[in-house]
Amino acid sequence: MANKFKILHTGGRARAGRLETAHGVIETPNFNPVGTQGTVKALGPRELKEIGVQIILANTYHLMLRPGADLIEKFGGLHKFMNWDKPIMTDSGGFQVFSLGIALEHGSSKVLSRSKNQELRIKHEEGKPRLNKITEEGVTFQSHLDGSKHLLTPEKSIKIQTQLGADLIVAFDDHESSKHTHNQMLESIELTEKWGLRSIQKYQELCHSGKKPLLYGVVHGGTHKDLRVRSARFTDDNFEAISIGGIYGDHKQLCRIIEWVTGVVSDEKPRHLLGIGEVEDLFNGIELGIDFFDCVAPTRRARNGSLYISLKIGGRKENHFAMNIKSANNTTSKDPIDPDCRCYTCLNFTRAYLRHLYVANEILYHQLATYHNVYFITKLVEKIRESIKEANFKKLKEKYLGK
Amino acid sequence: MANKFKILHTGGRARAGRLETAHGVIETPNFNPVGTQGTVKALGPRELKEIGVQIILANTYHLMLRPGADLIEKFGGLHKFMNWDKPIMTDSGGFQVFSLGIALEHGSSKVLSRSKNQELRIKHEEGKPRLNKITEEGVTFQSHLDGSKHLLTPEKSIKIQTQLGADLIVAFDDHESSKHTHNQMLESIELTEKWGLRSIQKYQELCHSGKKPLLYGVVHGGTHKDLRVRSARFTDDNFEAISIGGIYGDHKQLCRIIEWVTGVVSDEKPRHLLGIGEVEDLFNGIELGIDFFDCVAPTRRARNGSLYISLKIGGRKENHFAMNIKSANNTTSKDPIDPDCRCYTCLNFTRAYLRHLYVANEILYHQLATYHNVYFITKLVEKIRESIKEANFKKLKEKYLGK
Repeated sequence: MANKFKILHTGGRARAGRLETAHGVIETPNFNPVGTQGTVKALGPRELKEIGVQIILANTYHLMLRPGADLIEKFGGLHKFMNWDKPIMTDSGGFQVFSLGIALEHGSSKVLSRSKNQELRIKHEEGKPRLNKITEEGVTFQSHLDGSKHLLTPEKSIKIQTQLGADLIVAFDDHESSKHTHNQMLESIELTEKWGLRSIQKYQELCHSGKKPLLYGVVHGGTHKDLRVRSARFTDDNFEAISIGGIYGDHKQLCRIIEWVTGVVSDEKPRHLLGIGEVEDLFNGIELGIDFFDCVAPTRRARNGSLYISLKIGGRKENHFAMNIKSANNTTSKDPIDPDCRCYTCLNFTRAYLRHLYVANEILYHQLATYHNVYFITKLVEKIRESIKEANFKKLKEKYLGK
Repeated sequence: MANKFKILHTGGRARAGRLETAHGVIETPNFNPVGTQGTVKALGPRELKEIGVQIILANTYHLMLRPGADLIEKFGGLHKFMNWDKPIMTDSGGFQVFSLGIALEHGSSKVLSRSKNQELRIKHEEGKPRLNKITEEGVTFQSHLDGSKHLLTPEKSIKIQTQLGADLIVAFDDHESSKHTHNQMLESIELTEKWGLRSIQKYQELCHSGKKPLLYGVVHGGTHKDLRVRSARFTDDNFEAISIGGIYGDHKQLCRIIEWVTGVVSDEKPRHLLGIGEVEDLFNGIELGIDFFDCVAPTRRARNGSLYISLKIGGRKENHFAMNIKSANNTTSKDPIDPDCRCYTCLNFTRAYLRHLYVANEILYHQLATYHNVYFITKLVEKIRESIKEANFKKLKEKYLGK
């Protein structure tokens, strides 16, 4: 039976388990590489399988605009369209319409405010904020591709996600801005609640079979404890799976939010931290009971020359466990990115060659670098799972992040 | 023993054989995909091997500028630097200093004059011709990367090619422009002859071991029979391997040039048609006794959306045996690029998905499209080799090009 979530091991609040889906089992905790436009950038399905990736996340917003949900549905869903037969999660589209609209206006998109790291900034090609119109019905937004107007509603988001045929889907949600007042955030949560119920209604209307997707509700509330707790209660009361959205602030803020939410929701439901997945966040999130993460960090970092390295060769939270391939030190380096890494890239190519490919703007760089970064995070999460099974998680976390 | 070339089958002037090198045997006729900067664009070594590629060509000009021949030598040569343990050919650099210099000034670079196909134009990012200074010593040119001045001489070209550790190398040559008079072309040939002898001298000085590379001389002479014959005689008298350079004009012109040259040079020496490799040219060249080709066509076409298709689904010389993935017809197509193709891309992905990746500017498009195009040409040349062995070449050629 699909959507059976089982916790097999716990250690404190951390837990290791498995989620069954129509496209196979996902071991938890797990990390979803992001395949925004129906491809994890620079990696094909066979590379993803070779790495050991068990699930990917695709973006509803991008796919509804291009190539369109109707087209993908005609191909039998996204799995067949992109030739990936393992689990897929889609998001609600809510974050994208927010980040391309009000977040721009407020200069407060989640990523912008979380990190000063230029590499992680969301790029807005046109440079101008596009104001979205939010009503109780839904969000009217302009396509980032051609400026055409679109309306996204809870019903539409759920419809599209079922057309895409995702295994894990997310209820349509409103996003608060960090510049909003407490009262504005409360209004936003009330909207997310209404939209959540409408999402459930549409889900029940469309999904009957044993292969129906698992529907996540989204907990919002910014950095306000009372709002997060309220939103978590509502989500737990109404959904079989819990996701946490609208996260901004530093690593400590992130931990506080997770604690508030996991303190409220039922232990037996899977929990997903939306859009988060740097190494430090993985450890912190898992420690506090998170089961799933998705993040563009490994793929985007790779494209920008930022490659993950292990503790042994200087990876630490201060450098985000990454080194810069552009660095002059790498020009003549016969070492792999990481001598401890067993990925195809590290087993076959030197830093000097990768740096050359990067500087020469060669496509092969992206393939090899992305392969390494996704492999690194996938293996790290595997290691974390093992540590929970072996009651070693705390020790492993200390090794990586210090006491 | 390296560099043993053996013709095993002939049919008319066409021949099938094998060339032994220090990095393995190349079956002939063969096609070298081009790996300009030490990588065949968008394909790693394991994809190349899976396809069945037996040899690649790298560009001396590009590698001397970046990352530099000294660096690659320190890594044990280009094979080790790029992790490709099969044969590598390097060119002399002569064509690049020409095409980025006088050819621009004359609007007569080989590729520009051969085809009106925009896709095959050589792109000059700065848009301004850079005049090279040609003296008997060599060519002074400006780097296309940073404008720095460099001098390339026969001695330097050979030195660099041995530093790169290529299995097949080419004597430094001057390139005539199609706008040159007969007399100017004669002067150019005389320079190529002098440079050829100096290349041989440097080669003998540097290469002693049994693993020494095979040195090709280059036949020039534009579209003048007397000059081509003279240059062919000189090359045959002085070199163990013959390459034909400076080719422009249409397919018929190409055939005439090849006939003039192969009519003069020794049958037992390998013959390489530099920078040529469209489907029609492969058939024509092989029919007239050419053993080796290199060309950016499969890789560049792929990047531009032009994908090879077989006869059965409409491939013909008029469309260069290619279709345009951008075409609206492909938007909803569940077909592979070519139903007869057994490549990884065709076995796993639809035209609709590839078109989506192309339109969405996804890196995976380049990997999959390039894989297909290089596979297509590699298998076509395999088929041609078989046809020569089975005395079927003429029939195969007629099937592709008509009578």
